[in-house]
Amino acid sequence: MPGSPVNKDLQAERDKCSFDKNEFTLWWVGGKEKLKEKLDLEKFLESDPEFQNSTPTHFLSHKELYEETIRQATVIFRKVRRFHEDRGNGDPSNYMATLGGLLGNGIIRQGNPMGVHFAMFVPAILGHGSPEQQAEWLPRSLKCQIIGTYAQTELGHGTFLRGLETTATYDERTQEFVLESPTLSSYKWWPGGLAHTANYCVVMAQLFSKGNCHGIQPFIVQLRDEETHMPLKGITIGEIGNKLGMNSVNNGFLGFDHVRIPRKNMLMKNAKLLADGTFVKPPSQALTYGTMMFVRVVICRDMAFHLAKMATIAVRYSCVRRQSQINPDQPEVQVIDHLTQQYKLFPAIAKSIVFKLTSENLWQMYTQVTAELDEGKLERLPELHAIACCLKVVTTADTATAVETCRMACGGHGYMTCANFYNTYGFVTAACTYEGENTVLLLQTARYLVKVWNQAIKGQPLVPTVQYLANFIQSKNNRHPWTDSVPGIIKALQTVAAAKLRLAYEHIEQRKKAGYTHEEAVNLTGLELTQTAEVHCRAFLVQSGYEMIEKLCQTVSAPLAKVMRTIGELYAYNEALDMLASLVRFTSISESDINRLQAKLEQTLLSIRPNAVSIVDSFAIPDMLLGSPLGAHDGNVYEKLYEEAKKSPLNQEPVNKSFHLYLKPFMRSSL
Amino acid sequence: MPGSPVNKDLQAERDKCSFDKNEFTLWWVGGKEKLKEKLDLEKFLESDPEFQNSTPTHFLSHKELYEETIRQATVIFRKVRRFHEDRGNGDPSNYMATLGGLLGNGIIRQGNPMGVHFAMFVPAILGHGSPEQQAEWLPRSLKCQIIGTYAQTELGHGTFLRGLETTATYDERTQEFVLESPTLSSYKWWPGGLAHTANYCVVMAQLFSKGNCHGIQPFIVQLRDEETHMPLKGITIGEIGNKLGMNSVNNGFLGFDHVRIPRKNMLMKNAKLLADGTFVKPPSQALTYGTMMFVRVVICRDMAFHLAKMATIAVRYSCVRRQSQINPDQPEVQVIDHLTQQYKLFPAIAKSIVFKLTSENLWQMYTQVTAELDEGKLERLPELHAIACCLKVVTTADTATAVETCRMACGGHGYMTCANFYNTYGFVTAACTYEGENTVLLLQTARYLVKVWNQAIKGQPLVPTVQYLANFIQSKNNRHPWTDSVPGIIKALQTVAAAKLRLAYEHIEQRKKAGYTHEEAVNLTGLELTQTAEVHCRAFLVQSGYEMIEKLCQTVSAPLAKVMRTIGELYAYNEALDMLASLVRFTSISESDINRLQAKLEQTLLSIRPNAVSIVDSFAIPDMLLGSPLGAHDGNVYEKLYEEAKKSPLNQEPVNKSFHLYLKPFMRSSL
Repeated sequence: MPGSPVNKDLQAERDKCSFDKNEFTLWWVGGKEKLKEKLDLEKFLESDPEFQNSTPTHFLSHKELYEETIRQATVIFRKVRRFHEDRGNGDPSNYMATLGGLLGNGIIRQGNPMGVHFAMFVPAILGHGSPEQQAEWLPRSLKCQIIGTYAQTELGHGTFLRGLETTATYDERTQEFVLESPTLSSYKWWPGGLAHTANYCVVMAQLFSKGNCHGIQPFIVQLRDEETHMPLKGITIGEIGNKLGMNSVNNGFLGFDHVRIPRKNMLMKNAKLLADGTFVKPPSQALTYGTMMFVRVVICRDMAFHLAKMATIAVRYSCVRRQSQINPDQPEVQVIDHLTQQYKLFPAIAKSIVFKLTSENLWQMYTQVTAELDEGKLERLPELHAIACCLKVVTTADTATAVETCRMACGGHGYMTCANFYNTYGFVTAACTYEGENTVLLLQTARYLVKVWNQAIKGQPLVPTVQYLANFIQSKNNRHPWTDSVPGIIKALQTVAAAKLRLAYEHIEQRKKAGYTHEEAVNLTGLELTQTAEVHCRAFLVQSGYEMIEKLCQTVSAPLAKVMRTIGELYAYNEALDMLASLVRFTSISESDINRLQAKLEQTLLSIRPNAVSIVDSFAIPDMLLGSPLGAHDGNVYEKLYEEAKKSPLNQEPVNKSFHLYLKPFMRSSL
Repeated sequence: MPGSPVNKDLQAERDKCSFDKNEFTLWWVGGKEKLKEKLDLEKFLESDPEFQNSTPTHFLSHKELYEETIRQATVIFRKVRRFHEDRGNGDPSNYMATLGGLLGNGIIRQGNPMGVHFAMFVPAILGHGSPEQQAEWLPRSLKCQIIGTYAQTELGHGTFLRGLETTATYDERTQEFVLESPTLSSYKWWPGGLAHTANYCVVMAQLFSKGNCHGIQPFIVQLRDEETHMPLKGITIGEIGNKLGMNSVNNGFLGFDHVRIPRKNMLMKNAKLLADGTFVKPPSQALTYGTMMFVRVVICRDMAFHLAKMATIAVRYSCVRRQSQINPDQPEVQVIDHLTQQYKLFPAIAKSIVFKLTSENLWQMYTQVTAELDEGKLERLPELHAIACCLKVVTTADTATAVETCRMACGGHGYMTCANFYNTYGFVTAACTYEGENTVLLLQTARYLVKVWNQAIKGQPLVPTVQYLANFIQSKNNRHPWTDSVPGIIKALQTVAAAKLRLAYEHIEQRKKAGYTHEEAVNLTGLELTQTAEVHCRAFLVQSGYEMIEKLCQTVSAPLAKVMRTIGELYAYNEALDMLASLVRFTSISESDINRLQAKLEQTLLSIRPNAVSIVDSFAIPDMLLGSPLGAHDGNVYEKLYEEAKKSPLNQEPVNKSFHLYLKPFMRSSL
């Protein structure tokens, strides 16, 4: 409804803004040029009739959704490429970056079946392919003359890679590998685009040569005929079915029955297999960290964007919706005026901003560490791995919870698919499982922390992110003196992490003395270990958010700095109160301190309140990408909900055929 | 796959059982007769080809799903009725009770469009209709000669009933009411079955007569022609669209444009409107509590059943799935052997059992209070209302969280729709919003507690569920002495509730002194108030679970009593640790107490471990109702997942048409 007047409650919110929204947006987006490109691109796509669905995709069948998505995906890849080429930047990574974020997700809501081609197939060739292999495969891949996917997970194994069962056995006689799925549980299961979209695949399989197993290696396998798209001989392929979300990703299964590929199809940048079947180990495992780190930075950043989107929808709706009176002689209030509602929504804003800043911080750490790597220094890799693991866990878990909190804060209307919470939840909650299941990753971080604790009690030097352990040990384990400034909270949370680590460590030692192996003792201490890793991460997030915000405040105007600091405070107070049990156990926090902290949290909510709509406006997410009648910029919520309802295919006829077929005969039969 | 051998890991679990599963099942189901009826009915339905979908419904379009559901719903109503009539119990409430639980939900996974007819339309006639009105409407309704729904919620208003905008204005001249939707936001929105299924409706509207408003009253309105099913004049009707779940419920919208109905269509058991337009108030409002209480007892019980189902699926799968080694020289372990996994699953079992017992306890309280009502004693009604409100909140919120925890504990496969977590989540999370939004209900309980606190500090006598406040006040606010027995934990949680209530009360008083109205002060104390109501509820749940289990243990064998007590302990320890911050603040719990409590929780998990499969087996949910390859009784998880995948319509042809239409041209175009 272009040109429809803005809801007056929403306009009144905007009139209250205390800061320069454009300044906020420029920072959030990353500068003037990026903002211009973003706006141009949105305009370019917004007007395009090829993206307007006459029927919203959530009314389609599973099969229709796939077909419509392939149409959209091919259209959008073409367009975005043309857009970038017109501006002289034809590098394919540009248009993939464009499509990976909210833009792609805003247009193709249930996931792009060609996403894995750019996100994993091409990077696998780059990361694992020798120069010759890259020359062979990259040009055709980047031009999408072939579409690939990446097959690692199997029906029977996910996060535990060593358990994968697919085999690639080298046949010296023909210089070929024979790919085999020895069991049903060894079928590849989950790769996006595998089912009916891709015709090539990077397959991770156990390499056998001369009777020995050389572990998991990557192989390029053609799946379908390039001309007819028919599956090749020995290949069993299909889709795995309907899911909670991401239903247009076209996740597939794949079985091999004596499939032969030439030796050159093993990607040999790192490990190699010589023609005679001799296996040559890779020089270093460190190289594989790069991709993993990159993916986790991207996940962390994507969570920030999803949160910004959800907060935008829920905050705007909460200003338009009126429900219940506070004072009985006055009209119903905007639901955002209920303190309980503010407590549901504003932490989502704070998390969005802190997660974005932390993803940038993590990326800076990574580039620094890789620079050190080039000088042969490896010591910070495990530290970086440990923090990336737990950041992936906490950002995905917190975002999933926050999406649902925002949704439920919109009451029944949040439950509508068109409100667009549910699609987002599907994306976000999937990230809790893929790229390393969250509990497994927390245990990896914990294992690192236990090792470091061992070094710390011996007085050995510690790397930056765990330096606080040394302080804790030096403080002789007294209760940490509580102060409720943000730096004080950071120190308190670090104390909690250290104290919990010490307890977990002691419990492992006790169990070992009682006769358990180290591994059994670790398993039996699993609950405390995961909690310790989580606190380690939360302390890092509060610190990271604080430092990045302080840095930012050096360069922005005073009104914006004030807003940003309040947001950082809300994040810190909220985390501290969530961890109150540990604060009471391990710091000097008193009853009056607790009440003051609670009051500070409430005060922070009230100070964000007048700027809430302006903050989410500054995230600059256009209606097309929000995709929600509840979050529309003009606030005409009920009109837009009604418009959406009218699009239902069931509403195109007054009487559905099931009345005549089933209902009427039933009603006439007296049951 | 009937007759396929049981997975040997699962069989080994069953062989370890320490108690009599049949004894457990008999208690869970409610005795021999009910078990027999349950098994007979399941067998009767299981074998029926009319319930076998050739294509699982999650592959259908939104419209196809509705059409298929109407087919199934009419078939199942007929069958279940025949089943009961054959056994001589033709009372329609019987077959509704049968279909309301896991059985109906197991067959019609996204909700029955005729559910509201039995669950709300018929009860509304019973609850609000005069004897003459019941005689007119009940027979046809019970025989399903008409299908009704219940329209209360509007586009602009849900939980806050006074805000509803639909009007029914009495026209003395014709002795009719004129129904009107004065605004778009007054359109009825959400009623199940309203869109295309029902032809009648109970409409809640603001009654106007002689220029005065007499508040919300119920009216019977015909929506569609009985012969043609066409909407009647002045009626705008349709469906509201796709949702997160319950997509076959056929939720609808409804607008009135001068719709006239005769005076006799206002349901007049309570309030009345005389022919001359005089309004007669109902004798008492207490009567309306009945239906509300009943609905909340049913919700609480349904949550227990959903949890039992989710726990069954996740526990069985976790025994079949092997992932990661604990000791590096041994094979991969069953994932249930990871302590972190036990901590995800076993609390769901404990919650299921405690919620079921509490729903029974609540029902006993209700029947007792209504017996007192007949003697004119009204004082326990607000108490009962307060506890029912917060129980609805905590049981729905905890169940929603537990469903997702169980799902994610099944890794990627839990994300499949066929795993059946997601359908259940759709049901359960909806219950957090309907029948009173959870935050609003917590605030209602809190408001009651604040009133009671006022009485308590004056030394006035208190009703049973808040008696603990008097003890707290008498104890002169010293720290409550901690003991970690379950009765000790109950007392500690009650102390926490009382201490938090005192704080909230004080903060309200402080705000009033600072110049806020009482209502503003309550709003600004909203976070503390909701937390207080929640603890009040959790203390009640632990107590209720404990007392009901102890009573049960008087009558069951020693091995089963041992299992039940362990489950009650797990529930109590888990709740206590979740509330640790408050325990440390308000009780004498020490560091060593905390460590001991943690150790007890872990020990409880380990003692449930060998019986886990046998406990969920005892819930006696057949595969047809579990509806999940992951939870199948024979444990052939991977075979069944593969079978499900093969049913996808996309898998019925090797190449999808979108390849030729879009993909090939795209790949040939070099973008």
